[in-house]
Amino acid sequence: MPKLSADRYFSPDPAQRSLARDLYAQVADLPLICPHGHVDPRLFADPDYKFGSPTELLIIPDHYIFRMLYSQGISLESLGVPKVSGEPSETDHRKIWQTFADHFYLFRGTPTGCWLNHEFQTVFQLENKLTSDNAQQIYDQIDGQLQSEEFQPRRLHERFNIEVLCTTDMATDTLEHHQTIRDSGWSSPILPTFRPDDVVLIDQPGWLQKIERLGELTGESIISYASYLKAIENRREFFRSMGAKATDHAAVNAYTGKLSDSAADAIFQRALQGKMNDDDAQIFRGHMLIELARMSTEDGLVMQLHVGSDRNHNGNVFDVFGLDKGCDIPLATEFTRSIRPLLNEFGSDPRLSLILFTLDESTYARELAPLVGHYPSLKLGPPWWFHDSLHGMRRYFDQVMETAGIYNTAGFNDDTRAYPSIPARHDVWRRASADWVASLLVRGMIDDQDAQAMMRALAYDLAKQAYNLD
Amino acid sequence: MPKLSADRYFSPDPAQRSLARDLYAQVADLPLICPHGHVDPRLFADPDYKFGSPTELLIIPDHYIFRMLYSQGISLESLGVPKVSGEPSETDHRKIWQTFADHFYLFRGTPTGCWLNHEFQTVFQLENKLTSDNAQQIYDQIDGQLQSEEFQPRRLHERFNIEVLCTTDMATDTLEHHQTIRDSGWSSPILPTFRPDDVVLIDQPGWLQKIERLGELTGESIISYASYLKAIENRREFFRSMGAKATDHAAVNAYTGKLSDSAADAIFQRALQGKMNDDDAQIFRGHMLIELARMSTEDGLVMQLHVGSDRNHNGNVFDVFGLDKGCDIPLATEFTRSIRPLLNEFGSDPRLSLILFTLDESTYARELAPLVGHYPSLKLGPPWWFHDSLHGMRRYFDQVMETAGIYNTAGFNDDTRAYPSIPARHDVWRRASADWVASLLVRGMIDDQDAQAMMRALAYDLAKQAYNLD
Amino acid sequence: MPKLSADRYFSPDPAQRSLARDLYAQVADLPLICPHGHVDPRLFADPDYKFGSPTELLIIPDHYIFRMLYSQGISLESLGVPKVSGEPSETDHRKIWQTFADHFYLFRGTPTGCWLNHEFQTVFQLENKLTSDNAQQIYDQIDGQLQSEEFQPRRLHERFNIEVLCTTDMATDTLEHHQTIRDSGWSSPILPTFRPDDVVLIDQPGWLQKIERLGELTGESIISYASYLKAIENRREFFRSMGAKATDHAAVNAYTGKLSDSAADAIFQRALQGKMNDDDAQIFRGHMLIELARMSTEDGLVMQLHVGSDRNHNGNVFDVFGLDKGCDIPLATEFTRSIRPLLNEFGSDPRLSLILFTLDESTYARELAPLVGHYPSLKLGPPWWFHDSLHGMRRYFDQVMETAGIYNTAGFNDDTRAYPSIPARHDVWRRASADWVASLLVRGMIDDQDAQAMMRALAYDLAKQAYNLD
Repeated sequence: MPKLSADRYFSPDPAQRSLARDLYAQVADLPLICPHGHVDPRLFADPDYKFGSPTELLIIPDHYIFRMLYSQGISLESLGVPKVSGEPSETDHRKIWQTFADHFYLFRGTPTGCWLNHEFQTVFQLENKLTSDNAQQIYDQIDGQLQSEEFQPRRLHERFNIEVLCTTDMATDTLEHHQTIRDSGWSSPILPTFRPDDVVLIDQPGWLQKIERLGELTGESIISYASYLKAIENRREFFRSMGAKATDHAAVNAYTGKLSDSAADAIFQRALQGKMNDDDAQIFRGHMLIELARMSTEDGLVMQLHVGSDRNHNGNVFDVFGLDKGCDIPLATEFTRSIRPLLNEFGSDPRLSLILFTLDESTYARELAPLVGHYPSLKLGPPWWFHDSLHGMRRYFDQVMETAGIYNTAGFNDDTRAYPSIPARHDVWRRASADWVASLLVRGMIDDQDAQAMMRALAYDLAKQAYNLD
Repeated sequence: MPKLSADRYFSPDPAQRSLARDLYAQVADLPLICPHGHVDPRLFADPDYKFGSPTELLIIPDHYIFRMLYSQGISLESLGVPKVSGEPSETDHRKIWQTFADHFYLFRGTPTGCWLNHEFQTVFQLENKLTSDNAQQIYDQIDGQLQSEEFQPRRLHERFNIEVLCTTDMATDTLEHHQTIRDSGWSSPILPTFRPDDVVLIDQPGWLQKIERLGELTGESIISYASYLKAIENRREFFRSMGAKATDHAAVNAYTGKLSDSAADAIFQRALQGKMNDDDAQIFRGHMLIELARMSTEDGLVMQLHVGSDRNHNGNVFDVFGLDKGCDIPLATEFTRSIRPLLNEFGSDPRLSLILFTLDESTYARELAPLVGHYPSLKLGPPWWFHDSLHGMRRYFDQVMETAGIYNTAGFNDDTRAYPSIPARHDVWRRASADWVASLLVRGMIDDQDAQAMMRALAYDLAKQAYNLD
Repeated sequence: MPKLSADRYFSPDPAQRSLARDLYAQVADLPLICPHGHVDPRLFADPDYKFGSPTELLIIPDHYIFRMLYSQGISLESLGVPKVSGEPSETDHRKIWQTFADHFYLFRGTPTGCWLNHEFQTVFQLENKLTSDNAQQIYDQIDGQLQSEEFQPRRLHERFNIEVLCTTDMATDTLEHHQTIRDSGWSSPILPTFRPDDVVLIDQPGWLQKIERLGELTGESIISYASYLKAIENRREFFRSMGAKATDHAAVNAYTGKLSDSAADAIFQRALQGKMNDDDAQIFRGHMLIELARMSTEDGLVMQLHVGSDRNHNGNVFDVFGLDKGCDIPLATEFTRSIRPLLNEFGSDPRLSLILFTLDESTYARELAPLVGHYPSLKLGPPWWFHDSLHGMRRYFDQVMETAGIYNTAGFNDDTRAYPSIPARHDVWRRASADWVASLLVRGMIDDQDAQAMMRALAYDLAKQAYNLD
């Protein structure tokens, strides 16, 4: 890993690089807007919260890291990833760290490599590259820092200059940590996001218990589709009262289609009784996406839709280690016809704001840019997950912006549960943006004034506006 | 928008830029070949034709422009887009122009932005960038020019150095304006193109009237598939007599499949009686594409096929404002198997020339380049519609040319109804071509002689040859 | 075609070019690893083997070349391509060569053009570019060399510095040429690869005869699925004894799915009796891919899977000229769900090594990089066929490496039957690799040490390791 260069990620062409450097300098000190991510709000609820060991912070919970190690034959067990059975995985954090260091070369040229390099140098002030030889010494260095007050999440939050951070929370989440944060008087906004997949995806294990819980939390007796909708609306209102600005929805595809209330109720009843037909889950989800859009027109929550991941592809890993273990694989995705029913209902409604995310880059130029470049309700989210990388961003700028224009995109979000990687991820985006804007400027496609306005929009304004964070 | 730079759109690398500049200089003064587009022939029928107001010329008819404004919540009504009902839309052209100027920033980094910039500076000689403040003053400037003789279409045609321009005309079009142009003795060729979608797509509203009209025009009593074919052949002959070099066909997908005459007639009869089965329209279209290819082998008209647009995606906009209102959205497209029946019939026939267009760039390297790099009848058309842009062209060169070679492509066409944007569009293509050829030259993949030949072919020869315009 | 430049294929940017040049210099003299290709082992069996005429060596057998000529209306017959009927094609090799020279411009900017240029200058020491005028003179030059001892395959092998070359051989191949090579005591390894498509694809013409032949060769009476498996296992053992390191499998799509033994046997019986159901071939192939993976876990042969070519697209060419005549066209391909059954069975088995190849680049970032970046058994093969080109490699590096990391890829293979093009093809890969690694280095994403390690891995180590050629 290289010493961080002031010109990292910029084109080597001197003319473009110089423009990119100047553009970047204009936004380098702007606060970070984090409107979508998976940081645990507990970090901020306890003012004295401490991260665990380096391994606990950086490796065990980060599927970007352990998926790469797993791909080279290192078992998740030996990396300390906990089993759903409760049976023990490796507990020697120094040993895990050593394995990580021994295989650090695997991350050459990857975004994870870039983020780690940035974290090591700017968050932990490491001077040397991690190697097999210095692994334990670096472990000590990081470990020592993690014990210090300076590395408490609230302190890092200030150091990272994060203006606002949104978490992702299930419909049945009580938001107790958010409440504690508010009660503590800490001023930096940590806002919940309403993600009701737990109660909308009727084929997910445990759905019925979630419905029961939803009933308890809302005081609704959820015996019908009508009471179910009411309970969801109630819960949205609660989230809004706790500062939520947005909802989030995962779907394996972008199918939408409106049902009659009675048809929706029929499926809902079958789900309650555990007697679903084959397509019920998809049909119900496609209907609910339209209902959830309708609710957004009424309560103003920005709607996010993340489409196209085949979750838990590796059945063995899922059985032993559970969800989110690096074995979700993207699927080819169709938007044009799938999302048309929703858009014909609410796509031109000025009250709806719907941000789309894809894992299928072939839809950027073909479907998504044309869609967001027409429908007033739509915005395109930043490159997501596997595409949240320097080259992924280049492809996004290249394939989206000419048709959509930047003002139909939603800026950047880091989508991460790896808290100390947040500055690194925004750093890549801001530099990639600067380099792209510079590439237009140096080719005479825009002028200086345009370039400066675009730079600021990409780095800061678009995300803030898209999520109503003003 | 920047002052037009002499090196616009070229790589910033000094070596590549210098080569690109030299290559471009070789073709900069070649006349424009416009073998496919949607300019209204009326412009040239009346030698004294005047364009209306700036708003009438540049905004109201241009869906590239108003779709972007619509995407940001500006109603089509307020932009003066006429309603099918005849109810009034905004008629204050200065007010519409002001709205456009207020939102001109939306076009930053888009091809529309580049074209407008080029038009404003080279066609209208504007010295300042359009802003909210100078909007009315610029309106006056353009308006004044549009009233002058210099800005009559025939005069602009000469100024634009357009060697030949092909229009797009329905099978039932009488070509009266083309006749008037011929009668007037004006020497610059304005040629019709035979686009029989109106009589081939049997599920389109109004198809039966079009068939009746086709009968009247051809003197055929169209009561059977056989007489229908005869009428189409008759009409092709008429178009040829009026100078047509090509046909054009739109299809939602690339499906082709041969029917027996009796099967074709059965569908045709159902269509006449308005009693079609679900798949009749697609099956008939797939059959007719093969029949139309057969006709091309007989009468020599070059065949164009434009595939993969989901028309009128926004039902509300379609209902109120009708066709071509910026809400057509591309679809994933399959060519390999779909078009095989046609190619197995006529793909190796030396008399057929079939030019393919796609909105699905994932087919460039995967299907289209391999197809046109094998079948003698096939050529690939330039990047189409949403992909007619600097970066779209780069992706096209990148993904098509290694497999297809440039000589299996059809050069450029502007495909526009926005007449004053024609030079701007060709300018982007010629510069993008120069930069791409320079990128090969500077990497030692071709030599100087190759580069010069390729440059001229891309800028001029290929389009002329592909459409038999010699 | 240009004089070969020392900096060919590198970025023109001076900083990146200089780094690329240095990186390339480190690997330029490393021997070539050729783990997958279609060179005829006969070339090496006879120590006195001579290539025929220039036309026989370079044109008649090379579908990359004659497909391009065919696409411009030149008949395969006139190019000397033999007919399956035995009827004569053009036999005047000088005339064919002249046609080739007259159309040499078609290869401008194509990989074939680059390879030919490299061959002409480095293998045949030509000083002038091939033209219509010098065609016969150059024919004489090449022809003279081909008659000399220096141009015998074994001599070229040493000159090309090929460390190991793997051929591709049917399950029913006797490997007699491989045996002759071994017996001759020639030391350079020419290894067979087990490609059992001939006995696995039950819908291929001649399958039954192949099964009979398989029975003869293995001494198995193949009357059941069980005896069929045994015969295949027997044959794998024979190939292993002859030095095979890998198997290879072609499939029109990536479908896999496990059958019960009785279900597999039922299909097998129907195949023996020529009474297959519509989907039998696909279902059986999908099952056999899992069985073949199972065999690889047992005998250690690396498994290769090449997916997504619609073979013999042009029925007329196939009927007259047979297989591999440049009319195979890629298909959109789905991996995520298709290959999941195989991966859930063996994807995490440390004994399996499965190398995937695609013709659908949209799967690089979407499916393949995420898959190979997770499953320990998987590696991604290099850009294949139409994508084996400078720009194809760039897209591969761009779209694969950030998610997969280079260590989950299999380095390069040339996949060619055109023996004298081998150095040219590796030259493109090594230079493309150097330029890509340099692009990361100059952007501060990796450091010098990383760059050097990655360069060597891409040029040499990865291929050797992926195929167990150590």
